[in-house]
Amino acid sequence: MTMPALAPLAPAFRAMVRDRLRARAAAAGLDGLLVLGPGNVTYATGWHFSANERPMGLWIPVDGEARLFVPHLELENALDVPGVRVATYDEFPGEVPPVLWMIGETGARRLGIDALEARLLEAARASVAHLDLADHVRPERVVKHDAELALIREAARFADRVLERLLASGADIIRQGGTELDLMADATGHARAALMARHGQAFQGTKVGITASVHSGPRAALPHGAVLARQPAPGEPVIAGIGCSLGGYHAESGATFVCGAPTAEQRRVMQAMDDANRATIEALAHGHACAGVNTAALAPIRAAGFGAAIRHRIGHGMGVEGHEAPWLAPGDATAAAPGMVFSCEPGIYRPGLDGWRTIETLIVGTAAVEVASRFQSTHPPETRMLPL
Amino acid sequence: MTMPALAPLAPAFRAMVRDRLRARAAAAGLDGLLVLGPGNVTYATGWHFSANERPMGLWIPVDGEARLFVPHLELENALDVPGVRVATYDEFPGEVPPVLWMIGETGARRLGIDALEARLLEAARASVAHLDLADHVRPERVVKHDAELALIREAARFADRVLERLLASGADIIRQGGTELDLMADATGHARAALMARHGQAFQGTKVGITASVHSGPRAALPHGAVLARQPAPGEPVIAGIGCSLGGYHAESGATFVCGAPTAEQRRVMQAMDDANRATIEALAHGHACAGVNTAALAPIRAAGFGAAIRHRIGHGMGVEGHEAPWLAPGDATAAAPGMVFSCEPGIYRPGLDGWRTIETLIVGTAAVEVASRFQSTHPPETRMLPL
Repeated sequence: MTMPALAPLAPAFRAMVRDRLRARAAAAGLDGLLVLGPGNVTYATGWHFSANERPMGLWIPVDGEARLFVPHLELENALDVPGVRVATYDEFPGEVPPVLWMIGETGARRLGIDALEARLLEAARASVAHLDLADHVRPERVVKHDAELALIREAARFADRVLERLLASGADIIRQGGTELDLMADATGHARAALMARHGQAFQGTKVGITASVHSGPRAALPHGAVLARQPAPGEPVIAGIGCSLGGYHAESGATFVCGAPTAEQRRVMQAMDDANRATIEALAHGHACAGVNTAALAPIRAAGFGAAIRHRIGHGMGVEGHEAPWLAPGDATAAAPGMVFSCEPGIYRPGLDGWRTIETLIVGTAAVEVASRFQSTHPPETRMLPL
Repeated sequence: MTMPALAPLAPAFRAMVRDRLRARAAAAGLDGLLVLGPGNVTYATGWHFSANERPMGLWIPVDGEARLFVPHLELENALDVPGVRVATYDEFPGEVPPVLWMIGETGARRLGIDALEARLLEAARASVAHLDLADHVRPERVVKHDAELALIREAARFADRVLERLLASGADIIRQGGTELDLMADATGHARAALMARHGQAFQGTKVGITASVHSGPRAALPHGAVLARQPAPGEPVIAGIGCSLGGYHAESGATFVCGAPTAEQRRVMQAMDDANRATIEALAHGHACAGVNTAALAPIRAAGFGAAIRHRIGHGMGVEGHEAPWLAPGDATAAAPGMVFSCEPGIYRPGLDGWRTIETLIVGTAAVEVASRFQSTHPPETRMLPL
């Protein structure tokens, strides 16, 4: 069976997104939405631009054509975006702050803005009759369409490939004196080449790539620490966390390997994380609120006595951005629903001793929760071993 | 003559920065500053963290110890930051938005915040007697100290090395069928290896690296376009824009090469950019306002008849961030002063035809303007040739 060739999302998808946003704006009694969050602009246009201090804005009026507001140096790039008109401002910072200029250009009386600096709020309010600061793009983005899910599934497959390579070549590399950095370079290089060979051409101009981190031994206790020229030692865990993007859509996969046969205590840690995976899937399948999913997911880790080693929530949404709403964390009341995509990443971090984390990409379906990243399912804990 | 070994900025530097910020807060009648801009936090702590949706805050009270507010998963990383106490919040988004929790923790009545989302403004205002949204860190950051300038000079030197390599090996690579991507990979790989060999160890844990873009022919007309598997053709220009960071400090260098001998018209373009470089240095040396420096810098390009091909300002500040204030652009009234660092990047972009840009890193001194990147000075326009 050959997979059908994937392609970047079509202009018709973006037009559909803008129509749905028009309907949301109308329902909120607004004249339209000025979209300023970079991820939101990409979502509604398909344009992958380099976000910097120069704001990009997309005006989506309830009636009429969408308009892209960009700095003059992006003119030609913006003209390539299908289905929108383009207007440019000279430069940043500019005599008038570009965002205030954009607000003036919309001509809106009742305006929605998804992201705004507090410093501009008074001036923004003064130039419209009503300003709505709710992010009306977010409820659209959190529920993915089939075309988006297809990209996320494929991205997850290539994230898996990094882990497969690390499992296959990691022990050899370490035996030859290899370090965290060497493991990372070999495994990502391998998967990146495969990704570019398969999709590089078709996805040119979109966001395509692989990022990874590898941490071993006591360094594995620092989830955001630097990857070092450190050689993993026998008995130590090696955490690998992989992100892949394809056509601007993100997925993750991650595992913790053990250098040699795991001890009974290490197997207990791995079991607790496995139980957390199952609890997450169960809670998502029941449509619990995201905050409640987090509580349910972390319960098996606490029950196993590792509560003090928890450092973060169980996961986050993924799509146009690697981290996006909804958040499987305290404070997010969103109910899990079909089309949502989450990372599930139980972590057990013991400073001075070691660290453990696995990552799955989960897609909430109508009938079941799909595990898009396959590495953990196809490689049970006892096989995640680098025999030094 | 051997250069003295460089090292990351010392904790004493960060303590000095915080003391200067204390003085600024006191002068503004504030109880202290809650610093939220990621670049500002790094500037005042020396901590290079990965910025994401979880806010990091640094509380600098006029009296008393500084406190770093971080999510729980950054606890151990934050404890390594010298001279500050640490307090953690559970997770993002949290029952209470982390920034509002931080404001409560400060206990301040008269509070300065450098960066805030508009959505949080009302709640922030309600919890203090006076809220000052000016960025009191910016006026400190724009004037660099000698220790910062030493890092910027060294970063500029390694940015130059990318260009030197491209000039030395570029023609060969193109003759063998090489593309923009190949040129970029060869030249950055070469300079990155040299950078890591020289400074990798001493600067571990800080931001160290090289980024580059290479655009040729008509693609060179798109300053932010993707680098492609496109082979430059005889007669075409090849733009290379290089950024280097060392110890978290940034510098740039950039040049446009011609594949073969430049035509008379191409020499006119290069001459106009050279004149723009000189005009920038002249205006900076006179302490003109940044907006005026931009006008003066672009004048020679307009005078040469290329005004319609201007797409962006002449440059931007550099330091903790690759792009930072002050801006050599309309709307920035800051007077150029000793210790300021700017990119100078005249560009001439002719969609459908070609594009040209050079970049220098300039340091405003008390006696003169120093050109920290040396490639252009050591390689006059007629030598920037890739003979195919």
